Amino acid sequence: MSEKISIAIDAMGGDNSPNKTIKGVKFFIDKNSKNNDFVLNLFGKEKEIKNELTKYKIDSKFINIINADNVVSDNETPLTAIKNSKNTSMWKCINYQINGDADISLSAGNTGVLLVISRMILKMMDKVSKPALAGLWPNQIGTNVVLDLGANIECTDENLVDFAELGSALYKSLFPSDTPKVSLLNIGSEEIKGTELLKNASKKLKELSNDDNFIFNGYIEGNNIMSGQSNVIVTDGFTGNVALKTAEGTAKFINLNLKKTLTKNIFTRISLIFSYFSLKKFKNKLDPRKYNGAIFLGLNGPVVKSHGGTDALGFFYSLDLSYKIVKGELMSRIKNNLKHLKNE
Amino acid sequence: MSEKISIAIDAMGGDNSPNKTIKGVKFFIDKNSKNNDFVLNLFGKEKEIKNELTKYKIDSKFINIINADNVVSDNETPLTAIKNSKNTSMWKCINYQINGDADISLSAGNTGVLLVISRMILKMMDKVSKPALAGLWPNQIGTNVVLDLGANIECTDENLVDFAELGSALYKSLFPSDTPKVSLLNIGSEEIKGTELLKNASKKLKELSNDDNFIFNGYIEGNNIMSGQSNVIVTDGFTGNVALKTAEGTAKFINLNLKKTLTKNIFTRISLIFSYFSLKKFKNKLDPRKYNGAIFLGLNGPVVKSHGGTDALGFFYSLDLSYKIVKGELMSRIKNNLKHLKNE
Repeated sequence: MSEKISIAIDAMGGDNSPNKTIKGVKFFIDKNSKNNDFVLNLFGKEKEIKNELTKYKIDSKFINIINADNVVSDNETPLTAIKNSKNTSMWKCINYQINGDADISLSAGNTGVLLVISRMILKMMDKVSKPALAGLWPNQIGTNVVLDLGANIECTDENLVDFAELGSALYKSLFPSDTPKVSLLNIGSEEIKGTELLKNASKKLKELSNDDNFIFNGYIEGNNIMSGQSNVIVTDGFTGNVALKTAEGTAKFINLNLKKTLTKNIFTRISLIFSYFSLKKFKNKLDPRKYNGAIFLGLNGPVVKSHGGTDALGFFYSLDLSYKIVKGELMSRIKNNLKHLKNE
Repeated sequence: MSEKISIAIDAMGGDNSPNKTIKGVKFFIDKNSKNNDFVLNLFGKEKEIKNELTKYKIDSKFINIINADNVVSDNETPLTAIKNSKNTSMWKCINYQINGDADISLSAGNTGVLLVISRMILKMMDKVSKPALAGLWPNQIGTNVVLDLGANIECTDENLVDFAELGSALYKSLFPSDTPKVSLLNIGSEEIKGTELLKNASKKLKELSNDDNFIFNGYIEGNNIMSGQSNVIVTDGFTGNVALKTAEGTAKFINLNLKKTLTKNIFTRISLIFSYFSLKKFKNKLDPRKYNGAIFLGLNGPVVKSHGGTDALGFFYSLDLSYKIVKGELMSRIKNNLKHLKNE
């Protein structure tokens, strides 16, 4: 780690970039400038980036621009992208971590390409069988970590055990005072439920439980992901991806219906006058932009993927998350957890 | 099929039965008595059932009571239940379909036991590789069918193709004027996404598509289950179960937060006066009791599983669903779809 927290940002990835990314950078600096403990490395078309920095009057002492002429497009496959990638903002951004110039990378670009080139450049950590994509979910008490969200559509029990180690390290980097409770996502909470693979993973996690790293909390069902009873929820990338998107779809469905309801007639519109501020807080609490940023774990350096379609505020949240993860010493926590795995 | 629609009801299964089940029967008769085309066969402790029938002043011309002294308890495993099951309300209820005395069975009892003894008694239909549990989900336009919801935690591509045939027959029995659009649940909508198993199932469904039975609509992601773009969503029982419960958990999470918001202070309470009726309609539209009833498909007779914890209104909905399914000629539609499979 350099003296200051160094974040490599692909300024060109995602919709409306670099406007969105630089506006997100502005929100971030407004919030964290008093700490004066970070440098933001912006990768992309220098002229465009400079224009945006001027527009938002961003203090140059926090900024380092590295020019990259090309951008990975949204419809490129990993194969074509790798061929053309070495002068893209994404490639250069990830590559900046290699010599320790950055502690973490952040991109809102093409997910498939980002996962593949991150893995190519940063390589997998020793003792990690597969890297995983982790996300933050709101729950009744606070926030939990769910992984894998789609990096690996087929997993072994060993992979799931690794995900538990990686996910609990991530949780501790964000909430250092807690010992994370880890659960395996299953279709019932009784021991006899689920596939052989889950039963094997459960057995291994039970053996690894009860120490500094995490407490294994058994199986959890989909309806309890947001109950707050566990802090880290482990599943294969297929199931995790379906669960995440189903939750998104359900929230959208309910919100659309609620909106229709509350704008239906003169009475409901009057009601909105009285409930305006509270409903705004409600909307704010459940704002998906607050949970923007999936963390790619298990490589020799963390990579954060922002949603491509998010706006500047959403990008700010993923940047703030990147900063918190480094501050919370994610990488040394992962290494510590993996030692635990070695001593098994 | 007997002349009248004959429904076998396990009057003792689930919480607060037979009070709940008989009160549900009352709601059902209130709604459908003018049709005068059904008979409800109630299985359980005769005396208790009669007490409830008297309490709710239910017209005996719709009712046939068959005594069963025992009840399958909620914590029994299929193994012990089968040993002791022959005089239970559940066993006798399913068994009533064997000689054509009933067209469908309904129980709110122990799910695991119900699935196992239904399969034992009714046996699988020819050409069906595995039976599946199907549910109804609300969407932006109406209702769709999702299966499997947990009967088979591991599936082959052939199983998924069968589920498409079964699910589209169910959809057509409920909405006869539509040709159902069938989708496979996946983690992306592009052809290259997903497991080999899904790709094979997709290939087979493409070949079977474009006729009277169903139109194959490709892959669907979790966030679009409730968009209304497909009528039948096919997946393995593990993923389907996780998706269903995740949607339930998300809805509960949002509703709890909304309730907290709208009862927070004097202003929001005033707002409730103006929005009361609209919010009631909103709540009513999304009431999970309306979608109560999972249908076990692929056996020589349909079995409907009501949620054990639902109340009389929820039980009514599952009974009304059972009635509609028989009226919509589910079994002959399934047979017709399977012919289609034979001619492949």
